[in-house]
Amino acid sequence: MEDLNFKDTSKEKLRSIIFRSDTPAGKLFDIVLLVLIVLSITLVFLESVVDIRLSFGNIIRIAEWTFTILFTLEYLLRIYCSGKRFSYIFSFYGIIDLIAFLPSYLSLFFPGGQYLMVIRAVRLLRVFRIMKLTRFMNEGNVLGRALKASSHKIIVFLTCVLTLVTIIGTLMYIIEGDDTGFTSIPVSIYWAIVTITTVGYGDISPQSTLGQLLASVLMILGYGIIAVPTGIVSVEMARATEEAKRKCPGCNAAIHTLDDCFCAKCGTALEPAEYTGQDKQAP
Amino acid sequence: MEDLNFKDTSKEKLRSIIFRSDTPAGKLFDIVLLVLIVLSITLVFLESVVDIRLSFGNIIRIAEWTFTILFTLEYLLRIYCSGKRFSYIFSFYGIIDLIAFLPSYLSLFFPGGQYLMVIRAVRLLRVFRIMKLTRFMNEGNVLGRALKASSHKIIVFLTCVLTLVTIIGTLMYIIEGDDTGFTSIPVSIYWAIVTITTVGYGDISPQSTLGQLLASVLMILGYGIIAVPTGIVSVEMARATEEAKRKCPGCNAAIHTLDDCFCAKCGTALEPAEYTGQDKQAP
Amino acid sequence: MEDLNFKDTSKEKLRSIIFRSDTPAGKLFDIVLLVLIVLSITLVFLESVVDIRLSFGNIIRIAEWTFTILFTLEYLLRIYCSGKRFSYIFSFYGIIDLIAFLPSYLSLFFPGGQYLMVIRAVRLLRVFRIMKLTRFMNEGNVLGRALKASSHKIIVFLTCVLTLVTIIGTLMYIIEGDDTGFTSIPVSIYWAIVTITTVGYGDISPQSTLGQLLASVLMILGYGIIAVPTGIVSVEMARATEEAKRKCPGCNAAIHTLDDCFCAKCGTALEPAEYTGQDKQAP
Amino acid sequence: MEDLNFKDTSKEKLRSIIFRSDTPAGKLFDIVLLVLIVLSITLVFLESVVDIRLSFGNIIRIAEWTFTILFTLEYLLRIYCSGKRFSYIFSFYGIIDLIAFLPSYLSLFFPGGQYLMVIRAVRLLRVFRIMKLTRFMNEGNVLGRALKASSHKIIVFLTCVLTLVTIIGTLMYIIEGDDTGFTSIPVSIYWAIVTITTVGYGDISPQSTLGQLLASVLMILGYGIIAVPTGIVSVEMARATEEAKRKCPGCNAAIHTLDDCFCAKCGTALEPAEYTGQDKQAP
Repeated sequence: MEDLNFKDTSKEKLRSIIFRSDTPAGKLFDIVLLVLIVLSITLVFLESVVDIRLSFGNIIRIAEWTFTILFTLEYLLRIYCSGKRFSYIFSFYGIIDLIAFLPSYLSLFFPGGQYLMVIRAVRLLRVFRIMKLTRFMNEGNVLGRALKASSHKIIVFLTCVLTLVTIIGTLMYIIEGDDTGFTSIPVSIYWAIVTITTVGYGDISPQSTLGQLLASVLMILGYGIIAVPTGIVSVEMARATEEAKRKCPGCNAAIHTLDDCFCAKCGTALEPAEYTGQDKQAP
Repeated sequence: MEDLNFKDTSKEKLRSIIFRSDTPAGKLFDIVLLVLIVLSITLVFLESVVDIRLSFGNIIRIAEWTFTILFTLEYLLRIYCSGKRFSYIFSFYGIIDLIAFLPSYLSLFFPGGQYLMVIRAVRLLRVFRIMKLTRFMNEGNVLGRALKASSHKIIVFLTCVLTLVTIIGTLMYIIEGDDTGFTSIPVSIYWAIVTITTVGYGDISPQSTLGQLLASVLMILGYGIIAVPTGIVSVEMARATEEAKRKCPGCNAAIHTLDDCFCAKCGTALEPAEYTGQDKQAP
Repeated sequence: MEDLNFKDTSKEKLRSIIFRSDTPAGKLFDIVLLVLIVLSITLVFLESVVDIRLSFGNIIRIAEWTFTILFTLEYLLRIYCSGKRFSYIFSFYGIIDLIAFLPSYLSLFFPGGQYLMVIRAVRLLRVFRIMKLTRFMNEGNVLGRALKASSHKIIVFLTCVLTLVTIIGTLMYIIEGDDTGFTSIPVSIYWAIVTITTVGYGDISPQSTLGQLLASVLMILGYGIIAVPTGIVSVEMARATEEAKRKCPGCNAAIHTLDDCFCAKCGTALEPAEYTGQDKQAP
Repeated sequence: MEDLNFKDTSKEKLRSIIFRSDTPAGKLFDIVLLVLIVLSITLVFLESVVDIRLSFGNIIRIAEWTFTILFTLEYLLRIYCSGKRFSYIFSFYGIIDLIAFLPSYLSLFFPGGQYLMVIRAVRLLRVFRIMKLTRFMNEGNVLGRALKASSHKIIVFLTCVLTLVTIIGTLMYIIEGDDTGFTSIPVSIYWAIVTITTVGYGDISPQSTLGQLLASVLMILGYGIIAVPTGIVSVEMARATEEAKRKCPGCNAAIHTLDDCFCAKCGTALEPAEYTGQDKQAP
């Protein structure tokens, strides 16, 4: 019984270190973790540069395996001390934590697989938890809600854009022919996307007068079209910002942002905005 | 009489299968049709790639003719079972359905005409009918109304932009001369459009100091100018979104979007937003 | 006295033909003028294409002089029949009308000057007068007022952007050196403008790692910076649109756009929006 | 005592000339200073052009040292006559004034250091003080406040964008390999930034079909993503514009911009907006 209690307590302690970031130990753990992630991603970057790979290949490989083993241990610890194991394993961060070290083991069988380790970069999003977390999580929520609310309009919009580039890409293939880089319809559609998004690499560009005319029309169209997603997101952003305002418990005025400490109307002190992220509370 | 009735009934059935997508049979028909359209467009794409055309040309051509005959049959069936034939034939989708298979027959006389079959892509817009159609049609309507409401401003804006690129294009032709790609005024105007829309292929770019100065002015101008259509569309989008809100039959509050099921003020259940597309109701 | 009266009447008639576009004769005059302008600009375009100049040079030059004489006559007629001559001569359109034919005479002394004739394109803005003019003039006014209202913010913004590109351009000149196209500080500033406006020709691009890092920072900055003029114009556009609404004479509700014919509140018929352009009224 | 008084008065006079721009002498001083700054920056530009450096190198170097000594004297004078010396030295403009001439002295030891003199360009921001300053300072404040208010959202946004380009850059490195310019992961990330910001130099561009497909996805994503900062800034700009409105002392209506002279509701004359910059008041 005592032993079990002791075990429970130490497990509880470990859990608070690993999963929480509001205690000194938990914060330190998170910071060390972030530093390790940044270091391991830098290693992957360095390994991809030919000169460095040839000179320091062995050292890099040893360091990468060290990181991989550390991340594997961390993953196992997280599973061990989380309350509801399956809910962690199948949560967003649980899957990311797994993917973070799997590519290293895969690279034993498939050379080149180790580059997939950069998926670890997604773990860096945890940085919001360490910094003034509530505020950032909420800003992220406003962004996310605005994007979600406008997703229908964006799908309609993208379908129209894709239909347009398909038709204009094909027309350009017929007009320009093989000589000027428009070697097939898929390549011409790729060119149309490069043009309508105003990226404009210039690796393929129309040479005939008719082709340049059609390209001009596409660009002017793209000019107007780029306004549409901006308009959509602006409107939804305004709405989401409006909805994210907090109510004053005294006079009920919903005019306060997350930073306000006192009601602008009646002076009632506002409680600090509570934490709304899901990750930490789960286990 | 009986025979006629039977005929009428079977025609009615066929019509509901072909033109409606809210019955299982109608939905299946639409999905099969979409798959066939995607396949036939993919075939056109593949045929345009030289290597594939040389290896599998005959197979592709047979498959294309199969699709063409299927779409022709479908078109004839649609005409046969639609109530008001002419209103279908001259409707937007009626014309698109015709254009979808005409290029194949044209290619018998004009080689290369088969590539025009990609116009079939427009038929893919029917996908909105199969998915949660009401909502998408309405989102499309909001987009369309916003664009229509701002069309006057956009015409004024485009006329000014075209005047600007004509004058700056000509100036660049005078400044840069033939050596650096500015071979004629139309080509220089093409360059000015490529620049002001921030596409920037780089196939033509100024080399002289004066030319680079004028190009810089044009780019900074384009920077400010790109803000104008965005501003126009944002404002109209906000207005159209506002106007698209539904009224509550209980308390008359016009605050509900198409997704809401209950009034936020008085709790009255809202009827599901009714279908507003025209295509299905016509025949 | 009679003679003078006759003269006055015919002058009055001529003036209404030339300066007004709401009578059949005045409209016809404007349309013929627009067609002539388009034709003469097309001629300038064609002359700049080498092949066409070599083959049809003489014909083009004769046609250009015909247009020039026609526009000169038109200009003299306008001066003759306008009431307040100086107010026409020094008005915006008066100066444009003069510039429209001057380059032809200049080309007698300075070869190449005839290309400046494209300044005639500005005269095409008169097209708004022929089409549903009131509405377009007003839309133009909304655009213009929005731009004017935001001009202070735009000047502050441009000063900051120019300071930024000066400093980053110089840094790139120090980092990249002569080898990769950054041959001098002005050229490097040109590159910085090409980059921050997201045009990106690619004729000059950084090759060193440090240069690519700085360029990445500049691009990400440009990403955020391009949002600023858009935000400015959107806000001013919303305000100008709001202010452009007409008041109902019955109930005073200022909710009507220029297209509305009846008050949405009380049903009072609204007078058609009166013409607000200055050009026609002046003489 | 008398002597001290005389000294105080002359120091006071000097201070008002150097630090204030609302007296004729102070305005003249500021204008002369701006002209000198523009001239000295132009010199740095000219020196960087090889041909000019070779021909006029000595003259330019003498002129540059003249400017450096003038700016050094001005800096010493500013320190001498400012009331609170340390608050000037460590103020934003104090540091800029120091950096403005330091590079010249540095160039004695490190060749090439003189190009850093373009940092003087930042001093040009003082131009707002000479022109109708209050208004511009306030417009700048609105811009600054809008950017600051949206900084949290922008940080969240940038973190997501950087994570995205890291992952897509690595995928492109794996897909395209060394042959087509994607020589290492950092270079591929550079390409991803060039693409997602729609700059599109074209010095590196995908050649394989899979690479072009992934690039198309990235561009379409960038299309939607560029809407996010615009939406953020638009919303904050609208809020900051709203908050910047002045209250009428008569009827308390907060509807007046900085340009208004009379209240639109009750006709009370509004005081001219007072100066809100910090620089001039400090000493």
